[in-house]
Amino acid sequence: MTRPYNFAPGPAALPDEVLAQAAAEMLDWHGSGMGVMEMSHRGREFGAIYHQAEADLRELLAVPANFRILFMQGGGLAENAIVPMNLSRGGVADFVVTGSWSQKSHKEAQRYCTSKLAASNAATQHTTLPDPASWQLSADAAYVHVCGNETIHGVEFQTLPDLAALGSKAPLVVDFSSNVASRPTDWSRVGLAFGGAQKNIGPAGLTIVIVRDDLLGHALPVCPSAFDYKVVADNESMFNTPPTFGIYMAGLVFQWLKRQTEGGLTGVAAMEARNIAKSTLLYDYIDGSGFYVNKVDKACRSRMNVPFFLADESLNESFLAEAKAKGLLQLKGHKSVGGMRASLYNAIPYAGVEALVSHMREFATRHG
Amino acid sequence: MTRPYNFAPGPAALPDEVLAQAAAEMLDWHGSGMGVMEMSHRGREFGAIYHQAEADLRELLAVPANFRILFMQGGGLAENAIVPMNLSRGGVADFVVTGSWSQKSHKEAQRYCTSKLAASNAATQHTTLPDPASWQLSADAAYVHVCGNETIHGVEFQTLPDLAALGSKAPLVVDFSSNVASRPTDWSRVGLAFGGAQKNIGPAGLTIVIVRDDLLGHALPVCPSAFDYKVVADNESMFNTPPTFGIYMAGLVFQWLKRQTEGGLTGVAAMEARNIAKSTLLYDYIDGSGFYVNKVDKACRSRMNVPFFLADESLNESFLAEAKAKGLLQLKGHKSVGGMRASLYNAIPYAGVEALVSHMREFATRHG
Repeated sequence: MTRPYNFAPGPAALPDEVLAQAAAEMLDWHGSGMGVMEMSHRGREFGAIYHQAEADLRELLAVPANFRILFMQGGGLAENAIVPMNLSRGGVADFVVTGSWSQKSHKEAQRYCTSKLAASNAATQHTTLPDPASWQLSADAAYVHVCGNETIHGVEFQTLPDLAALGSKAPLVVDFSSNVASRPTDWSRVGLAFGGAQKNIGPAGLTIVIVRDDLLGHALPVCPSAFDYKVVADNESMFNTPPTFGIYMAGLVFQWLKRQTEGGLTGVAAMEARNIAKSTLLYDYIDGSGFYVNKVDKACRSRMNVPFFLADESLNESFLAEAKAKGLLQLKGHKSVGGMRASLYNAIPYAGVEALVSHMREFATRHG
Repeated sequence: MTRPYNFAPGPAALPDEVLAQAAAEMLDWHGSGMGVMEMSHRGREFGAIYHQAEADLRELLAVPANFRILFMQGGGLAENAIVPMNLSRGGVADFVVTGSWSQKSHKEAQRYCTSKLAASNAATQHTTLPDPASWQLSADAAYVHVCGNETIHGVEFQTLPDLAALGSKAPLVVDFSSNVASRPTDWSRVGLAFGGAQKNIGPAGLTIVIVRDDLLGHALPVCPSAFDYKVVADNESMFNTPPTFGIYMAGLVFQWLKRQTEGGLTGVAAMEARNIAKSTLLYDYIDGSGFYVNKVDKACRSRMNVPFFLADESLNESFLAEAKAKGLLQLKGHKSVGGMRASLYNAIPYAGVEALVSHMREFATRHG
């Protein structure tokens, strides 16, 4: 069976073989007589699924031993409150605003701490990244927040900022919702990373939090117990019933990631190589097309989300309808930006981007 | 294919035909070329799934038009914080403690309001229900909290309290995590009901909140936006990305519920009749066995969760091992209570309880 290519920004495409395995095991996981959704989260069977998923994610992302991996709920938007409830201690937090998502994080944190704007790319309509040397970092910041990849604006940090080199002792908080596992993470520069699973990892409703253990145990009294990182860590993510099926699906994706190879590389390194190739193919075509345009500074273009515009926007609906007829789905841009957006998460193969470019070329030839 | 009977307390058994449909649609929902997990939550396809699920739940539970149905995340334990953040206004809330779950609700609410103990059955080790006429209700309570069914202790309200008749104007908050859709809900007595989905409705990670609309809009400033009922309601549960696959699975369960019939009844009324028959079969056998005992007052025995003890507790492991060999799974009692527990949620058929009683009788004959 050949499925269409699904360029959705999230929830997003999952690998065929992951979905096929989940379907095959739906009524009976490994001879247990139960589907994964039907298992007690405290039973032996789900325990095995949980621990394998945790170990595989730790291996894939090379998470150091002094970081805890938490499987939570609420997605990135809930983390915008949960992070400051856990880390701010009611003091100051610095935010680097580079698009819609970091803007939301900056705003939500105001409920819990002094949420300062350290830098912003609003003047360029979120098409650049402010040079870290220009950031106005607070001497007393409890943490500094960045969004590693702005899903809507298509702006990505190619290197995480080195706060220590900037003279800051604050831990860096990274929202990696939309580029986790698409590239390695430099944990030496990170205190906490969080992300909704629904782009590169699995189904919506699962949130991954990876946090350095010295940052645990400082939650504000108003932090719900279910979202207190220390409570969650102490209970191996089972203080409340975790999203068990989401963790299982994520675990299948982790196994799939471990099987991937690209030019002698495996796992996340293979995905990074493939993602570079995929995004380069699309950006190079756009830049040379004379018909499509991507407005983001080349130094910070996202490998994951490629917003682009047609020379004649009155053709948008035709472009989408013809794409869909060719099996190229969910290419419509976010309403706040307009135009098109192709999300090239891990589950999108190189051939999918080739098919997209082929459609774009053919469409441009007819309408250019 | 005949599967074992799974008596797990939650996450719990789901109907075979629901799981089979989910498996069949895993890679391609209704010819869309996408699995449900891969759809944008803002797209036409998922919108259809969402609205059908909402309408079916409203029909099944006969939810009045002035109540909103919210699909959230975090489960019952997160709601223990989210409810007082939304409803308490920082004032007083009354709690009727009838077991582990209402005890946790009472404790967590202390973060946000004056959490008062209106009544407790602790003196009987949570085997009775305190007469509502004896409850010490506060004149200024923002709400009164009860747990409709205590999953661990097996205590269930057979009728929700009529607060107005008790002279209270406070709205009643009901935790219906473990008996939602197993019996009708009398909305004339309820201001808000919440529950994790993982017992009678679907997979863990989905939380259902049904709230009277006059209770919206009073969240404390510390309430995360993603958990502010008014924000959630105004955005049709899509302020943050909802647990899309969980909503889809719940929707399949709602469709299954609508297809159920029992003695001329359909839907939740049919389930109630079946649940009465199932629980009566098991309680009657236990009471007459001389080998097993259930310690709960007959007036408030749960139809959903039946804790019981063997006359000789040294036989517990044999009982469980032999049950498993006969395809009767997850009967071990909660660690805080011990013994056995059979959870008889909607997805457990009458034949499953017959098989359980048959095992119990045979085991008692050999060991009695």
